[in-house]
Formats: sequence, C-alpha cells, structure tokens
Amino acid sequence: MKKKQPARPGRTVIYGVHPVIETLKAGRRQIQEVYLAREPLPQWNLTAVLDAADIPLTRVSPNELLSIAGSPNHQGLAAQVGPFPYVEFFEILSASADQQGPVLILDEIQDPANLGSILRSGECLGVTAVILSKDRSVAVTPAVEKTSAGAAAHVPLARVVNLARAMDGLKESGYWIYATDSTAKAVCFATDLTGRVALVLGSEGKGIRRLVREKCDIALSIPMAGKVGSLNVSQTAAILLAESLRQRLAIGP
Amino acid sequence: MKKKQPARPGRTVIYGVHPVIETLKAGRRQIQEVYLAREPLPQWNLTAVLDAADIPLTRVSPNELLSIAGSPNHQGLAAQVGPFPYVEFFEILSASADQQGPVLILDEIQDPANLGSILRSGECLGVTAVILSKDRSVAVTPAVEKTSAGAAAHVPLARVVNLARAMDGLKESGYWIYATDSTAKAVCFATDLTGRVALVLGSEGKGIRRLVREKCDIALSIPMAGKVGSLNVSQTAAILLAESLRQRLAIGP
Repeated sequence: MKKKQPARPGRTVIYGVHPVIETLKAGRRQIQEVYLAREPLPQWNLTAVLDAADIPLTRVSPNELLSIAGSPNHQGLAAQVGPFPYVEFFEILSASADQQGPVLILDEIQDPANLGSILRSGECLGVTAVILSKDRSVAVTPAVEKTSAGAAAHVPLARVVNLARAMDGLKESGYWIYATDSTAKAVCFATDLTGRVALVLGSEGKGIRRLVREKCDIALSIPMAGKVGSLNVSQTAAILLAESLRQRLAIGP
Repeated sequence: MKKKQPARPGRTVIYGVHPVIETLKAGRRQIQEVYLAREPLPQWNLTAVLDAADIPLTRVSPNELLSIAGSPNHQGLAAQVGPFPYVEFFEILSASADQQGPVLILDEIQDPANLGSILRSGECLGVTAVILSKDRSVAVTPAVEKTSAGAAAHVPLARVVNLARAMDGLKESGYWIYATDSTAKAVCFATDLTGRVALVLGSEGKGIRRLVREKCDIALSIPMAGKVGSLNVSQTAAILLAESLRQRLAIGP
C-alpha cells in the first residue's frame, strides 16, 4: 500500500464505482493508479483484481479523493488513467455481425449528460458503435463516464473530423442511414431497424446539420402523443435502440 | 410595463423558455408575474398572451433575472407562480379513456433530473398520469420543470402518502400493475401494455421497496444486450412508454 500521492496535473482521473470497475473489466485502457476512500461493491474484490493487474492502490480520505477526482460524485473510488481508448473509424466498418445493433452517429452533441446517457443505453441495448464529430462535440470526459455508469468503457467509440465522409464510408459498407427527425413521416416502429443500420442524432438546440442530413437515406420519427412534442436526444436514442433490439429479437407485436 | 421588482421570498419562481410558456399554455397554475430579459420564441407573442391573461410583465437585465430565478439556466425568461397544480389521486382514477397510456408510479425517485426527464418523455408519449410518493421523493421543483422542458405543466401528477394504498385503488379500478425489474422473466415487448396499465419504477439505488413490489401483479423487464446491464430509470420509463404507444398504435412487428 503506497502513501497518498495526488494525481499529477494533466493526467485524467475517472471517478465513481462503475466507471472505475467497468474500465478495469473492459481492459481497454491504461490504469496507472487507483484511489480508494471506501470499499466499492461487496461482491467485488478490488484489491485482488488490482494485485493481479499490478495496479497500485492508494487509500485516501474522502476529502483527499474529492481533490483528486475534482468532483463530489466519486463514491469513494477514482483512478488515474491513460487517454480514452477511442477506436478508429475503419475498425467500426470491419467489425460487424449479422445480428448487430445500430451504429449511432452523434452530430455535435455538446451536453456531457446526454452523451453519457446515450452511451449507457447504447451499451445496454447492444449498440455496435458510436461515432462523434471531433469538432463542436463533447469528448468522453470523466463526467461523461460517470453519467454512463461505466458503460463508456465498453462501447466502441470513434471520433471523426468529417461526419459526412464517414457516412459515405458506412454506405459503401452496406449501411442504411436514418436521420432522426420528429417531423418525419416514416415511423420507427414500422421501419426495419435490423442489420446494417446507422441512426443520426442531432444536438438539442440545432438538430442535425444540413450537410449531414443530406447524407442520410431517409428520416424517421418516434410517434408523439402529447402537447410538448419533443423528446430529449438521449431518450430518442434509448427508444430507437430498444425498438431495434425488439425487432432483432423478433418480439411483438 | 412595471419597474423591476424581485420575486418575494417564499414565492416560487420557474425559469426557462419552455417551463414558462408551457405553464401559460396549460392554464392550470396561477402566474403572478413574468420576468423577461430576452424575447423568447419569435413565433410566440409573449406580450399579447400576457396582456390577454392580465399578467404583469417586468423587463429585467440578465443579471437581475439570474438573481430572481436563482439559476443561470433561465434563458431570459422566468415567472413567479403559485403552487404546482398537483391533482388528487381520485381524479386519476376517474379520468380514463379507452386508448389511454400507462399510469406511472414512481417509488422514491429522488433525482430532480430523473423526474424532469420522466415527465418530459411521459408527456410526449401519452402517459395518463404520474403518481409520486410524498415522502422521500423529489417534488416538482423549478429545476424539475426546467429538465422536463415544460412538460410538467401538462402531466396530471398526484402525490400520495401511501403508495401501496393507491395501488389498491388502481387495482379496484381495473388497473393491471407491473413492476419494472431488470431480472424479470416477462419481457415488455411481449407484454400487453395497452388499456388500464400502471408501471412502477423504483429509485436507482434501491429499486422498488418490498411493500410496493408485493402490490404489483407481475414484474417485467426490458431485454438487455450489453455487459453493464442497467438502464437509468428515466430511460427505462421512456422505453416502456414508447412500447406502450407502439402497441396502442398497433404498429409492428
């Protein structure tokens, strides 16, 4: 057990029980050190896992952890980690299965809570990959990982400079690309969302940019039954991913 | 136009373009005064609406509005309002239609963002009503209304002291009550969610309390396709409400 040693400036510290544990489980990211103020889950032997992986564990006070994590939402656990393991776009194209879930394309999503929430439901509902625009989009920050409840560690996530060009690549690989648009006539429940499908989601304020929208094959909507009539982007993603899963499982009507 | 006069202490101030405008549209809540720092929506003639309703409008600076609203998320608009117009539980029992959406029963939901998000998707997807436990649940605060994007103004919402007794009342009125439980064998997509259906959602940490769980007729789950395996409560609500809407519209498979 080493003495307390705060994370060095410029290093990334993820925090929260699920982000740290799922990052350990996923094994895709360098973990330099784990900081513990409170034992995480009873069924999870953290010390043994860290020993086996040769990762140093430092016990700290809750206040020290607050200063290391930079957030009060640390739940007693944090880790100094390497860069987030984004995948390359071409890896998404080559990795594909018959019964795969959709690829999500996020056009300038800027709210970390929305991105975290989309990664969480995406992981649960079998998203194949998530593609972000590099500019004007939030990256996977520790706050995003916390909101994702650790799911960010498992989802293949690529950042691309040019979304429109990535969409061309998807089309050449046989993907059918849907824009989500609350005014679209085609309804998600009556649309085939199985196979090589990509769903484009825009930012809450501006929606999908015109150039990105023009690259889509068709637009689809979720039917609305209320007066306000606009779902949050993360709710839209969850509903479309669940509908795709329902169709893949062939359950219904 | 009156001179600036800050909201009196103890009064409720809602803020944000959608919360204020939807509260005006819904006409269910007393509005004492509206504070404006920036014209809201181009297509919405706020001054004319307020004149017609005899509601005073005070123009303020963004900084004055920050102090009146107590939140930086005011978007240039706030209103001093009366108490939130909760409905009585018996009104939910008596108000019912053939093609109605589910009733949501929220057991000790404490996160304002989750409640706001549930009210937003609930309103969009045709929820009949939402029932909250009075103790240990968040109430409809201005932050909840902001997250709900104004949807809270339209959803019939009752607070009850005893959830179990309310569930008895629902059953006597012919409701079928489902617990949501990620381990349940019955899958939402293969379950009839039309007609008089109530869905019980528990808090993220603790789930549904035992006494409330025992009052449910059966439990249902959303199928999972990932490794992390737990959706946020507001995503669970959105997916189940969308599935109920799909079944009511008879779209599928």
